[in-house]
Amino acid sequence: MTTDAIVEGVHFLSNDPAHTIAQKALRVNLSDLAAKGAAPAGFVLTLALRAADDAWLTPFAHGLATDSRAFGCPLLGGDTVSTPGPVMISITAFGRVAPGQMVRRSGARPGDRVVVTGTIGDAALGLDILRGGRVTAALAGDPAARKMLTDRYRVPQPRNALLQALRDHAHAGMDVSDGLAGDLAKLCAASGVSAVIDVPGIPTSLAAAAVLAAGAVDMESLISGGDDYEILCAIPEDDFEAFAHAAEIAGVAVSSIGTVIASASAPKFLDAQGRDMPLSRRSYSHF
Amino acid sequence: MTTDAIVEGVHFLSNDPAHTIAQKALRVNLSDLAAKGAAPAGFVLTLALRAADDAWLTPFAHGLATDSRAFGCPLLGGDTVSTPGPVMISITAFGRVAPGQMVRRSGARPGDRVVVTGTIGDAALGLDILRGGRVTAALAGDPAARKMLTDRYRVPQPRNALLQALRDHAHAGMDVSDGLAGDLAKLCAASGVSAVIDVPGIPTSLAAAAVLAAGAVDMESLISGGDDYEILCAIPEDDFEAFAHAAEIAGVAVSSIGTVIASASAPKFLDAQGRDMPLSRRSYSHF
Repeated sequence: MTTDAIVEGVHFLSNDPAHTIAQKALRVNLSDLAAKGAAPAGFVLTLALRAADDAWLTPFAHGLATDSRAFGCPLLGGDTVSTPGPVMISITAFGRVAPGQMVRRSGARPGDRVVVTGTIGDAALGLDILRGGRVTAALAGDPAARKMLTDRYRVPQPRNALLQALRDHAHAGMDVSDGLAGDLAKLCAASGVSAVIDVPGIPTSLAAAAVLAAGAVDMESLISGGDDYEILCAIPEDDFEAFAHAAEIAGVAVSSIGTVIASASAPKFLDAQGRDMPLSRRSYSHF
Repeated sequence: MTTDAIVEGVHFLSNDPAHTIAQKALRVNLSDLAAKGAAPAGFVLTLALRAADDAWLTPFAHGLATDSRAFGCPLLGGDTVSTPGPVMISITAFGRVAPGQMVRRSGARPGDRVVVTGTIGDAALGLDILRGGRVTAALAGDPAARKMLTDRYRVPQPRNALLQALRDHAHAGMDVSDGLAGDLAKLCAASGVSAVIDVPGIPTSLAAAAVLAAGAVDMESLISGGDDYEILCAIPEDDFEAFAHAAEIAGVAVSSIGTVIASASAPKFLDAQGRDMPLSRRSYSHF
Protein backbone atom coordinates (compact mmCIF):
# COMPACT_ATOMS: atom_id res chain seq x y z
CA MET A 1 0.00 0.00 0.00
CA THR A 2 1.32 3.43 -0.84
CA THR A 3 -0.04 6.95 -0.81
CA ASP A 4 1.20 9.91 -2.80
CA ALA A 5 -0.43 13.25 -3.53
CA ILE A 6 0.19 15.86 -6.20
CA VAL A 7 -0.68 19.54 -5.83
CA GLU A 8 -1.22 22.15 -8.54
CA GLY A 9 1.69 24.57 -8.62
CA VAL A 10 3.88 22.14 -6.69
CA HIS A 11 3.87 18.79 -8.51
CA PHE A 12 2.17 19.90 -11.69
CA LEU A 13 1.44 23.22 -13.36
CA SER A 14 -1.97 24.82 -13.77
CA ASN A 15 -1.73 24.68 -17.55
CA ASP A 16 -0.51 21.07 -17.77
CA PRO A 17 -2.98 19.02 -19.82
CA ALA A 18 -5.62 17.41 -17.59
CA HIS A 19 -4.92 13.95 -18.99
CA THR A 20 -1.23 14.13 -18.09
CA ILE A 21 -2.11 15.40 -14.59
CA ALA A 22 -4.24 12.27 -14.11
CA GLN A 23 -1.45 10.08 -15.46
CA LYS A 24 1.10 11.66 -13.14
CA ALA A 25 -1.17 11.27 -10.11
CA LEU A 26 -1.50 7.54 -10.72
CA ARG A 27 2.03 6.92 -11.98
CA VAL A 28 3.84 8.42 -8.98
CA ASN A 29 2.03 5.77 -6.94
CA LEU A 30 2.72 2.96 -9.44
CA SER A 31 6.37 3.98 -9.26
CA ASP A 32 6.32 3.48 -5.49
CA LEU A 33 4.77 0.04 -5.92
CA ALA A 34 7.31 -0.94 -8.59
CA ALA A 35 10.20 0.04 -6.32
CA LYS A 36 8.83 -2.34 -3.68
CA GLY A 37 8.50 -5.21 -6.14
CA ALA A 38 4.70 -5.00 -5.93
CA ALA A 39 2.32 -5.54 -8.87
CA PRO A 40 -0.51 -2.97 -9.10
CA ALA A 41 -3.84 -4.18 -7.69
CA GLY A 42 -6.04 -1.07 -7.53
CA PHE A 43 -6.31 2.45 -6.14
CA VAL A 44 -8.60 4.92 -4.42
CA LEU A 45 -8.69 8.57 -5.46
CA THR A 46 -9.29 11.81 -3.58
CA LEU A 47 -9.90 14.69 -5.93
CA ALA A 48 -10.07 18.26 -4.59
CA LEU A 49 -11.37 20.61 -7.28
CA ARG A 50 -12.33 24.29 -7.45
CA ALA A 51 -15.17 23.54 -9.83
CA ALA A 52 -16.82 20.64 -11.63
CA ASP A 53 -15.63 21.60 -15.11
CA ASP A 54 -16.35 19.02 -17.80
CA ALA A 55 -13.76 20.51 -20.15
CA TRP A 56 -11.13 19.57 -17.56
CA LEU A 57 -12.74 16.47 -16.04
CA THR A 58 -13.33 14.65 -19.33
CA PRO A 59 -9.66 14.49 -20.37
CA PHE A 60 -8.69 13.92 -16.73
CA ALA A 61 -10.98 10.87 -16.54
CA HIS A 62 -9.74 9.68 -19.91
CA GLY A 63 -6.09 9.92 -18.87
CA LEU A 64 -6.84 8.08 -15.64
CA ALA A 65 -8.84 5.35 -17.37
CA THR A 66 -6.17 4.81 -20.00
CA ASP A 67 -3.41 4.33 -17.44
CA SER A 68 -5.65 2.34 -15.12
CA ARG A 69 -6.17 -0.17 -17.92
CA ALA A 70 -2.59 -0.06 -19.18
CA PHE A 71 -1.15 -0.84 -15.76
CA GLY A 72 -3.93 -3.19 -14.61
CA CYS A 73 -4.75 -0.96 -11.66
CA PRO A 74 -8.53 -0.39 -11.33
CA LEU A 75 -10.14 2.57 -9.57
CA LEU A 76 -11.81 1.12 -6.47
CA GLY A 77 -13.46 4.23 -5.04
CA GLY A 78 -12.72 7.65 -3.69
CA ASP A 79 -13.90 11.04 -2.58
CA THR A 80 -14.42 14.24 -4.56
CA VAL A 81 -14.42 17.50 -2.60
CA SER A 82 -14.42 21.17 -3.44
CA THR A 83 -11.53 23.42 -2.53
CA PRO A 84 -11.06 27.17 -2.89
CA GLY A 85 -7.35 26.52 -3.48
CA PRO A 86 -5.13 24.54 -5.83
CA VAL A 87 -6.31 21.27 -7.34
CA MET A 88 -4.99 18.33 -5.36
CA ILE A 89 -5.07 14.67 -6.24
CA SER A 90 -4.26 12.13 -3.57
CA ILE A 91 -4.07 8.46 -4.48
CA THR A 92 -3.67 5.44 -2.25
CA ALA A 93 -2.61 2.46 -4.34
CA PHE A 94 -2.44 -1.21 -3.47
CA GLY A 95 0.03 -3.74 -4.77
CA ARG A 96 0.54 -7.47 -4.54
CA VAL A 97 3.79 -9.13 -3.62
CA ALA A 98 4.36 -12.60 -2.16
CA PRO A 99 5.23 -12.73 1.56
CA GLY A 100 8.92 -12.07 2.10
CA GLN A 101 9.43 -10.72 -1.44
CA MET A 102 8.78 -7.02 -0.80
CA VAL A 103 11.85 -4.88 -1.50
CA ARG A 104 12.47 -2.50 1.41
CA ARG A 105 14.64 0.57 1.85
CA SER A 106 16.46 -1.02 4.74
CA GLY A 107 18.26 -3.99 3.19
CA ALA A 108 21.31 -2.41 1.51
CA ARG A 109 24.60 -4.00 2.60
CA PRO A 110 28.21 -2.91 2.24
CA GLY A 111 29.58 -4.14 -1.07
CA ASP A 112 26.22 -3.88 -2.91
CA ARG A 113 26.19 -1.96 -6.14
CA VAL A 114 24.11 1.24 -6.22
CA VAL A 115 21.96 1.03 -9.35
CA VAL A 116 19.48 3.43 -10.97
CA THR A 117 17.09 2.94 -13.85
CA GLY A 118 16.62 5.26 -16.84
CA THR A 119 18.17 8.72 -16.77
CA ILE A 120 18.40 11.26 -13.97
CA GLY A 121 17.48 14.94 -13.99
CA ASP A 122 15.26 15.11 -17.10
CA ALA A 123 12.09 16.00 -15.21
CA ALA A 124 13.80 18.84 -13.31
CA LEU A 125 14.96 20.24 -16.67
CA GLY A 126 11.45 19.81 -18.09
CA LEU A 127 10.01 21.80 -15.20
CA ASP A 128 12.59 24.53 -15.81
CA ILE A 129 11.48 24.70 -19.46
CA LEU A 130 7.78 24.88 -18.50
CA ARG A 131 8.67 27.76 -16.19
CA GLY A 132 10.59 29.52 -18.97
CA GLY A 133 13.96 29.02 -17.27
CA ARG A 134 17.49 28.92 -18.66
CA VAL A 135 17.14 25.41 -20.06
CA THR A 136 14.77 26.76 -22.71
CA ALA A 137 17.48 28.93 -24.24
CA ALA A 138 20.10 26.19 -24.00
CA LEU A 139 17.84 23.96 -26.14
CA ALA A 140 16.47 26.77 -28.33
CA GLY A 141 17.30 24.86 -31.54
CA ASP A 142 16.02 21.48 -30.35
CA PRO A 143 12.24 21.40 -29.86
CA ALA A 144 12.25 17.58 -29.74
CA ALA A 145 14.64 17.60 -26.78
CA ARG A 146 12.53 20.24 -25.01
CA LYS A 147 9.41 18.14 -25.55
CA MET A 148 11.12 14.98 -24.29
CA LEU A 149 12.13 16.81 -21.09
CA THR A 150 8.72 18.37 -20.44
CA ASP A 151 7.10 14.98 -21.12
CA ARG A 152 9.40 13.45 -18.53
CA TYR A 153 8.17 16.02 -15.99
CA ARG A 154 4.51 15.56 -16.85
CA VAL A 155 4.29 11.81 -17.39
CA PRO A 156 6.68 9.68 -15.35
CA GLN A 157 7.36 6.13 -16.52
CA PRO A 158 6.86 3.70 -13.64
CA ARG A 159 9.34 0.83 -13.87
CA ASN A 160 6.84 -1.97 -13.34
CA ALA A 161 8.65 -4.00 -16.00
CA LEU A 162 11.45 -4.45 -13.48
CA LEU A 163 9.28 -6.00 -10.72
CA GLN A 164 10.52 -9.55 -10.97
CA ALA A 165 14.16 -8.57 -11.37
CA LEU A 166 13.92 -6.43 -8.22
CA ARG A 167 12.23 -9.21 -6.25
CA ASP A 168 14.86 -11.69 -7.39
CA HIS A 169 17.98 -9.59 -6.87
CA ALA A 170 17.57 -6.30 -4.94
CA HIS A 171 18.65 -6.00 -1.30
CA ALA A 172 16.91 -2.61 -1.11
CA GLY A 173 15.02 -0.22 -3.35
CA MET A 174 12.99 2.97 -3.52
CA ASP A 175 11.81 5.30 -6.22
CA VAL A 176 13.66 8.56 -6.83
CA SER A 177 11.06 11.29 -6.45
CA ASP A 178 12.76 14.07 -4.46
CA GLY A 179 16.19 13.99 -6.08
CA LEU A 180 18.77 11.20 -6.38
CA ALA A 181 21.18 12.64 -3.80
CA GLY A 182 18.58 13.06 -1.06
CA ASP A 183 16.77 9.82 -1.80
CA LEU A 184 20.04 7.86 -1.74
CA ALA A 185 20.74 9.42 1.67
CA LYS A 186 17.30 8.17 2.85
CA LEU A 187 17.95 4.65 1.57
CA CYS A 188 21.39 4.59 3.20
CA ALA A 189 20.00 5.89 6.51
CA ALA A 190 17.24 3.24 6.49
CA SER A 191 19.86 0.54 5.84
CA GLY A 192 22.43 1.87 8.31
CA VAL A 193 25.06 2.19 5.57
CA SER A 194 26.59 4.84 3.32
CA ALA A 195 27.62 4.88 -0.34
CA VAL A 196 30.21 6.26 -2.71
CA ILE A 197 28.82 7.44 -6.04
CA ASP A 198 30.75 7.96 -9.26
CA VAL A 199 29.05 11.09 -10.59
CA PRO A 200 30.23 10.66 -14.21
CA GLY A 201 28.53 7.24 -14.10
CA ILE A 202 25.11 8.73 -13.35
CA PRO A 203 23.01 8.21 -16.48
CA THR A 204 21.80 11.36 -18.23
CA SER A 205 19.82 11.76 -21.42
CA LEU A 206 21.44 13.31 -24.49
CA ALA A 207 19.25 16.38 -23.92
CA ALA A 208 20.47 16.70 -20.34
CA ALA A 209 24.07 16.24 -21.47
CA ALA A 210 23.57 19.08 -23.98
CA VAL A 211 22.15 21.34 -21.27
CA LEU A 212 25.11 20.50 -19.00
CA ALA A 213 27.57 21.15 -21.85
CA ALA A 214 25.93 24.53 -22.50
CA GLY A 215 26.47 25.40 -18.83
CA ALA A 216 22.78 26.18 -18.28
CA VAL A 217 22.69 23.90 -15.23
CA ASP A 218 25.26 21.92 -13.27
CA MET A 219 25.29 18.25 -12.33
CA GLU A 220 24.23 19.12 -8.79
CA SER A 221 20.90 20.45 -10.11
CA LEU A 222 20.26 17.16 -11.86
CA ILE A 223 21.02 14.91 -8.90
CA SER A 224 19.07 17.08 -6.45
CA GLY A 225 16.11 17.80 -8.76
CA GLY A 226 12.85 16.03 -8.18
CA ASP A 227 10.32 14.05 -10.21
CA ASP A 228 12.62 11.44 -11.75
CA TYR A 229 10.47 8.47 -10.70
CA GLU A 230 13.29 6.13 -11.52
CA ILE A 231 14.22 3.22 -9.26
CA LEU A 232 17.26 3.38 -7.01
CA CYS A 233 18.33 0.00 -5.69
CA ALA A 234 21.10 -1.94 -4.02
CA ILE A 235 22.11 -5.07 -5.92
CA PRO A 236 24.61 -7.58 -4.49
CA GLU A 237 27.78 -7.70 -6.60
CA ASP A 238 27.27 -11.41 -7.36
CA ASP A 239 23.74 -10.72 -8.63
CA PHE A 240 24.51 -7.69 -10.76
CA GLU A 241 25.07 -9.53 -14.03
CA ALA A 242 21.84 -11.50 -13.69
CA PHE A 243 19.94 -8.34 -12.66
CA ALA A 244 21.30 -6.38 -15.62
CA HIS A 245 20.37 -9.24 -17.95
CA ALA A 246 16.81 -9.39 -16.57
CA ALA A 247 16.52 -5.60 -16.91
CA GLU A 248 17.68 -5.77 -20.51
CA ILE A 249 15.02 -8.37 -21.30
CA ALA A 250 12.45 -6.16 -19.53
CA GLY A 251 13.55 -3.21 -21.68
CA VAL A 252 14.61 -1.03 -18.76
CA ALA A 253 18.04 0.64 -18.83
CA VAL A 254 19.96 0.21 -15.59
CA SER A 255 23.27 1.81 -14.58
CA SER A 256 25.62 0.94 -11.77
CA ILE A 257 26.63 4.28 -10.25
CA GLY A 258 28.51 3.35 -7.09
CA THR A 259 28.98 1.09 -4.11
CA VAL A 260 27.39 0.72 -0.70
CA ILE A 261 29.94 1.11 2.11
CA ALA A 262 29.93 0.60 5.87
CA SER A 263 29.89 4.14 7.25
CA ALA A 264 27.68 6.43 9.24
CA SER A 265 28.41 9.51 7.14
CA ALA A 266 26.31 10.86 4.27
CA PRO A 267 26.83 9.29 0.83
CA LYS A 268 29.77 10.78 -1.09
CA PHE A 269 29.51 11.96 -4.69
CA LEU A 270 32.89 11.83 -6.48
CA ASP A 271 33.64 13.78 -9.64
CA ALA A 272 35.72 12.59 -12.62
CA GLN A 273 38.91 13.40 -10.67
CA GLY A 274 37.71 11.40 -7.66
CA ARG A 275 37.10 14.58 -5.65
CA ASP A 276 34.22 14.81 -3.19
CA MET A 277 31.53 17.07 -4.68
CA PRO A 278 30.06 19.33 -2.02
CA LEU A 279 26.27 19.36 -2.38
CA SER A 280 24.54 22.45 -1.09
CA ARG A 281 21.08 20.98 -1.66
CA ARG A 282 20.50 17.24 -1.76
CA SER A 283 16.84 17.07 -2.62
CA TYR A 284 13.58 18.81 -3.16
CA SER A 285 12.35 20.18 0.15
CA HIS A 286 8.61 20.63 0.60
CA PHE A 287 9.01 23.33 3.26
CA MET B 1 -11.63 0.47 2.67
CA THR B 2 -12.86 4.05 2.60
CA THR B 3 -11.40 7.40 1.65
CA ASP B 4 -12.57 10.80 2.81
CA ALA B 5 -10.87 14.17 2.66
CA ILE B 6 -11.42 17.40 4.57
CA VAL B 7 -10.45 20.83 3.25
CA GLU B 8 -9.83 24.05 5.21
CA GLY B 9 -12.69 26.48 4.67
CA VAL B 10 -14.95 23.68 3.41
CA HIS B 11 -15.01 20.91 6.05
CA PHE B 12 -13.27 22.77 8.83
CA LEU B 13 -12.45 26.37 9.59
CA SER B 14 -9.01 27.96 9.58
CA ASN B 15 -9.23 28.81 13.26
CA ASP B 16 -10.52 25.42 14.41
CA PRO B 17 -8.11 23.88 16.92
CA ALA B 18 -5.51 21.69 15.18
CA HIS B 19 -6.28 18.73 17.43
CA THR B 20 -9.98 18.75 16.49
CA ILE B 21 -9.09 19.05 12.80
CA ALA B 22 -7.03 15.87 13.14
CA GLN B 23 -9.87 14.17 15.00
CA LYS B 24 -12.40 15.15 12.36
CA ALA B 25 -10.15 13.95 9.52
CA LEU B 26 -9.90 10.49 11.08
CA ARG B 27 -13.43 10.29 12.45
CA VAL B 28 -15.22 11.00 9.17
CA ASN B 29 -13.49 7.89 7.88
CA LEU B 30 -14.23 5.84 11.02
CA SER B 31 -17.86 6.86 10.58
CA ASP B 32 -17.83 5.40 7.05
CA LEU B 33 -16.37 2.16 8.36
CA ALA B 34 -18.91 1.96 11.18
CA ALA B 35 -21.80 2.38 8.74
CA LYS B 36 -20.48 -0.61 6.81
CA GLY B 37 -20.20 -2.76 9.93
CA ALA B 38 -16.40 -2.70 9.68
CA ALA B 39 -14.03 -2.54 12.65
CA PRO B 40 -11.14 -0.05 12.23
CA ALA B 41 -7.85 -1.66 11.19
CA GLY B 42 -5.58 1.26 10.23
CA PHE B 43 -5.21 4.29 7.99
CA VAL B 44 -2.89 6.19 5.69
CA LEU B 45 -2.71 9.97 5.75
CA THR B 46 -2.04 12.60 3.10
CA LEU B 47 -1.36 15.98 4.63
CA ALA B 48 -1.11 19.08 2.42
CA LEU B 49 0.25 22.02 4.41
CA ARG B 50 1.29 25.58 3.62
CA ALA B 51 4.13 25.42 6.13
CA ALA B 52 5.72 23.05 8.61
CA ASP B 53 4.58 24.89 11.72
CA ASP B 54 5.25 23.07 15.00
CA ALA B 55 2.70 25.17 16.88
CA TRP B 56 0.04 23.65 14.60
CA LEU B 57 1.57 20.23 13.94
CA THR B 58 2.12 19.31 17.59
CA PRO B 59 -1.54 19.51 18.64
CA PHE B 60 -2.54 18.03 15.26
CA ALA B 61 -0.33 14.99 15.86
CA HIS B 62 -1.56 14.74 19.44
CA GLY B 63 -5.22 14.78 18.36
CA LEU B 64 -4.53 12.16 15.72
CA ALA B 65 -2.58 9.92 18.09
CA THR B 66 -5.25 10.13 20.77
CA ASP B 67 -8.04 9.07 18.41
CA SER B 68 -5.86 6.50 16.68
CA ARG B 69 -5.36 4.79 20.04
CA ALA B 70 -8.94 5.30 21.23
CA PHE B 71 -10.41 3.70 18.10
CA GLY B 72 -7.70 1.07 17.62
CA CYS B 73 -6.84 2.46 14.18
CA PRO B 74 -3.07 2.82 13.73
CA LEU B 75 -1.39 5.21 11.28
CA LEU B 76 0.24 2.95 8.65
CA GLY B 77 1.96 5.55 6.47
CA GLY B 78 1.30 8.55 4.30
CA ASP B 79 2.55 11.51 2.37
CA THR B 80 3.16 15.08 3.43
CA VAL B 81 3.22 17.73 0.71
CA SER B 82 3.31 21.50 0.57
CA THR B 83 0.47 23.50 -0.90
CA PRO B 84 0.07 27.22 -1.53
CA GLY B 85 -3.63 26.82 -0.80
CA PRO B 86 -5.90 25.55 1.97
CA VAL B 87 -4.79 22.77 4.28
CA MET B 88 -6.17 19.45 3.12
CA ILE B 89 -6.18 16.15 4.91
CA SER B 90 -7.05 13.02 2.99
CA ILE B 91 -7.32 9.71 4.82
CA THR B 92 -7.81 6.24 3.45
CA ALA B 93 -8.92 3.91 6.23
CA PHE B 94 -9.19 0.15 6.35
CA GLY B 95 -11.72 -1.89 8.25
CA ARG B 96 -12.31 -5.55 8.99
CA VAL B 97 -15.61 -7.32 8.50
CA ALA B 98 -16.27 -11.03 7.98
CA PRO B 99 -17.16 -12.09 4.42
CA GLY B 100 -20.84 -11.50 3.73
CA GLN B 101 -21.29 -9.27 6.80
CA MET B 102 -20.57 -5.89 5.23
CA VAL B 103 -23.55 -3.56 5.36
CA ARG B 104 -24.14 -1.99 1.93
CA ARG B 105 -26.24 0.91 0.71
CA SER B 106 -28.11 -1.33 -1.66
CA GLY B 107 -29.96 -3.74 0.60
CA ALA B 108 -32.99 -1.72 1.81
CA ARG B 109 -36.32 -3.46 1.14
CA PRO B 110 -39.90 -2.22 1.23
CA GLY B 111 -41.28 -2.52 4.74
CA ASP B 112 -37.90 -1.88 6.44
CA ARG B 113 -37.81 0.81 9.07
CA VAL B 114 -35.66 3.85 8.32
CA VAL B 115 -33.49 4.42 11.40
CA VAL B 116 -30.96 7.09 12.35
CA THR B 117 -28.56 7.29 15.27
CA GLY B 118 -28.04 10.28 17.56
CA THR B 119 -29.51 13.66 16.60
CA ILE B 120 -29.69 15.38 13.23
CA GLY B 121 -28.67 18.93 12.32
CA ASP B 122 -26.44 19.82 15.28
CA ALA B 123 -23.26 20.13 13.22
CA ALA B 124 -24.91 22.44 10.67
CA LEU B 125 -26.02 24.68 13.55
CA GLY B 126 -22.53 24.54 15.04
CA LEU B 127 -21.05 25.68 11.73
CA ASP B 128 -23.56 28.54 11.61
CA ILE B 129 -22.42 29.62 15.09
CA LEU B 130 -18.73 29.45 14.14
CA ARG B 131 -19.55 31.68 11.16
CA GLY B 132 -21.44 34.12 13.41
CA GLY B 133 -24.82 33.29 11.86
CA ARG B 134 -28.34 33.65 13.22
CA VAL B 135 -28.08 30.61 15.49
CA THR B 136 -25.65 32.53 17.70
CA ALA B 137 -28.30 35.10 18.62
CA ALA B 138 -30.97 32.43 19.09
CA LEU B 139 -28.77 30.79 21.73
CA ALA B 140 -27.31 34.02 23.14
CA GLY B 141 -28.16 33.05 26.71
CA ASP B 142 -26.98 29.43 26.45
CA PRO B 143 -23.21 29.14 25.99
CA ALA B 144 -23.31 25.40 26.86
CA ALA B 145 -25.71 24.73 23.98
CA ARG B 146 -23.56 26.77 21.61
CA LYS B 147 -20.47 24.80 22.68
CA MET B 148 -22.28 21.46 22.27
CA LEU B 149 -23.25 22.42 18.71
CA THR B 150 -19.80 23.69 17.68
CA ASP B 151 -18.26 20.55 19.22
CA ARG B 152 -20.62 18.45 17.11
CA TYR B 153 -19.33 20.26 14.00
CA ARG B 154 -15.69 19.95 14.95
CA VAL B 155 -15.55 16.46 16.43
CA PRO B 156 -18.01 13.93 15.00
CA GLN B 157 -18.75 10.83 17.04
CA PRO B 158 -18.33 7.73 14.87
CA ARG B 159 -20.87 5.08 15.85
CA ASN B 160 -18.44 2.18 16.07
CA ALA B 161 -20.28 0.94 19.14
CA LEU B 162 -23.11 -0.08 16.81
CA LEU B 163 -20.99 -2.34 14.57
CA GLN B 164 -22.30 -5.67 15.70
CA ALA B 165 -25.92 -4.54 15.84
CA LEU B 166 -25.64 -3.29 12.24
CA ARG B 167 -24.03 -6.51 11.05
CA ASP B 168 -26.73 -8.55 12.80
CA HIS B 169 -29.78 -6.58 11.74
CA ALA B 170 -29.31 -3.91 9.04
CA HIS B 171 -30.39 -4.53 5.45
CA ALA B 172 -28.58 -1.35 4.39
CA GLY B 173 -26.61 1.49 5.94
CA MET B 174 -24.51 4.57 5.28
CA ASP B 175 -23.26 7.48 7.30
CA VAL B 176 -25.04 10.82 7.04
CA SER B 177 -22.38 13.31 5.99
CA ASP B 178 -24.01 15.53 3.34
CA GLY B 179 -27.45 15.96 4.92
CA LEU B 180 -30.09 13.39 5.93
CA ALA B 181 -32.47 14.16 3.05
CA GLY B 182 -29.88 13.82 0.31
CA ASP B 183 -28.14 10.83 1.86
CA LEU B 184 -31.45 9.00 2.29
CA ALA B 185 -32.12 9.64 -1.40
CA LYS B 186 -28.72 8.06 -2.20
CA LEU B 187 -29.45 4.99 -0.08
CA CYS B 188 -32.89 4.60 -1.65
CA ALA B 189 -31.49 4.98 -5.18
CA ALA B 190 -28.80 2.36 -4.46
CA SER B 191 -31.47 -0.01 -3.14
CA GLY B 192 -34.04 0.70 -5.88
CA VAL B 193 -36.64 1.78 -3.32
CA SER B 194 -38.09 4.96 -1.82
CA ALA B 195 -39.10 5.96 1.70
CA VAL B 196 -41.66 7.96 3.64
CA ILE B 197 -40.22 9.93 6.55
CA ASP B 198 -42.13 11.29 9.52
CA VAL B 199 -40.34 14.61 9.99
CA PRO B 200 -41.49 15.17 13.60
CA GLY B 201 -39.90 11.79 14.39
CA ILE B 202 -36.45 12.95 13.26
CA PRO B 203 -34.36 13.21 16.44
CA THR B 204 -33.06 16.66 17.32
CA SER B 205 -31.07 17.84 20.31
CA LEU B 206 -32.63 20.17 22.88
CA ALA B 207 -30.36 22.92 21.53
CA ALA B 208 -31.59 22.33 17.98
CA ALA B 209 -35.20 22.28 19.20
CA ALA B 210 -34.62 25.64 20.89
CA VAL B 211 -33.17 27.10 17.70
CA LEU B 212 -36.14 25.77 15.71
CA ALA B 213 -38.57 27.20 18.30
CA ALA B 214 -36.85 30.58 18.06
CA GLY B 215 -37.38 30.52 14.30
CA ALA B 216 -33.68 31.02 13.57
CA VAL B 217 -33.66 28.05 11.18
CA ASP B 218 -36.27 25.67 9.80
CA MET B 219 -36.39 21.90 9.83
CA GLU B 220 -35.34 21.78 6.19
CA SER B 221 -31.98 23.34 7.14
CA LEU B 222 -31.41 20.59 9.68
CA ILE B 223 -32.23 17.69 7.39
CA SER B 224 -30.26 19.11 4.48
CA GLY B 225 -27.27 20.33 6.53
CA GLY B 226 -24.03 18.37 6.43
CA ASP B 227 -21.54 16.94 8.90
CA ASP B 228 -23.91 14.84 11.05
CA TYR B 229 -21.84 11.67 10.81
CA GLU B 230 -24.71 9.68 12.21
CA ILE B 231 -25.72 6.32 10.77
CA LEU B 232 -28.75 5.96 8.55
CA CYS B 233 -29.90 2.38 8.15
CA ALA B 234 -32.74 0.15 7.02
CA ILE B 235 -33.82 -2.38 9.66
CA PRO B 236 -36.40 -5.09 8.92
CA GLU B 237 -39.54 -4.60 10.98
CA ASP B 238 -39.09 -7.99 12.68
CA ASP B 239 -35.55 -7.09 13.74
CA PHE B 240 -36.24 -3.59 15.01
CA GLU B 241 -36.83 -4.51 18.65
CA ALA B 242 -33.64 -6.58 18.82
CA PHE B 243 -31.70 -3.83 17.02
CA ALA B 244 -32.99 -1.14 19.37
CA HIS B 245 -32.10 -3.33 22.36
CA ALA B 246 -28.56 -3.92 21.06
CA ALA B 247 -28.19 -0.18 20.42
CA GLU B 248 -29.31 0.62 23.94
CA ILE B 249 -26.73 -1.74 25.38
CA ALA B 250 -24.12 -0.14 23.10
CA GLY B 251 -25.14 3.29 24.43
CA VAL B 252 -26.17 4.67 21.03
CA ALA B 253 -29.56 6.38 20.68
CA VAL B 254 -31.51 5.17 17.65
CA SER B 255 -34.77 6.54 16.25
CA SER B 256 -37.17 5.04 13.76
CA ILE B 257 -38.08 7.89 11.43
CA GLY B 258 -40.01 6.23 8.63
CA THR B 259 -40.54 3.30 6.32
CA VAL B 260 -38.97 2.02 3.13
CA ILE B 261 -41.51 1.73 0.33
CA ALA B 262 -41.53 0.28 -3.17
CA SER B 263 -41.43 3.33 -5.42
CA ALA B 264 -39.17 4.98 -7.94
CA SER B 265 -39.83 8.53 -6.72
CA ALA B 266 -37.69 10.51 -4.29
CA PRO B 267 -38.22 9.89 -0.57
CA LYS B 268 -41.13 11.89 0.91
CA PHE B 269 -40.82 13.96 4.08
CA LEU B 270 -44.18 14.38 5.84
CA ASP B 271 -44.85 17.10 8.40
CA ALA B 272 -46.97 16.76 11.58
CA GLN B 273 -50.13 17.12 9.50
CA GLY B 274 -49.00 14.39 7.11
CA ARG B 275 -48.33 16.92 4.34
CA ASP B 276 -45.46 16.44 1.92
CA MET B 277 -42.72 18.95 2.77
CA PRO B 278 -41.20 20.40 -0.38
CA LEU B 279 -37.42 20.41 -0.05
CA SER B 280 -35.62 23.05 -2.09
CA ARG B 281 -32.19 21.70 -1.18
CA ARG B 282 -31.72 18.12 -0.10
CA SER B 283 -28.05 18.06 0.77
CA TYR B 284 -24.73 19.81 0.84
CA SER B 285 -23.46 20.23 -2.69
CA HIS B 286 -19.73 20.46 -3.25
CA PHE B 287 -20.07 22.38 -6.51
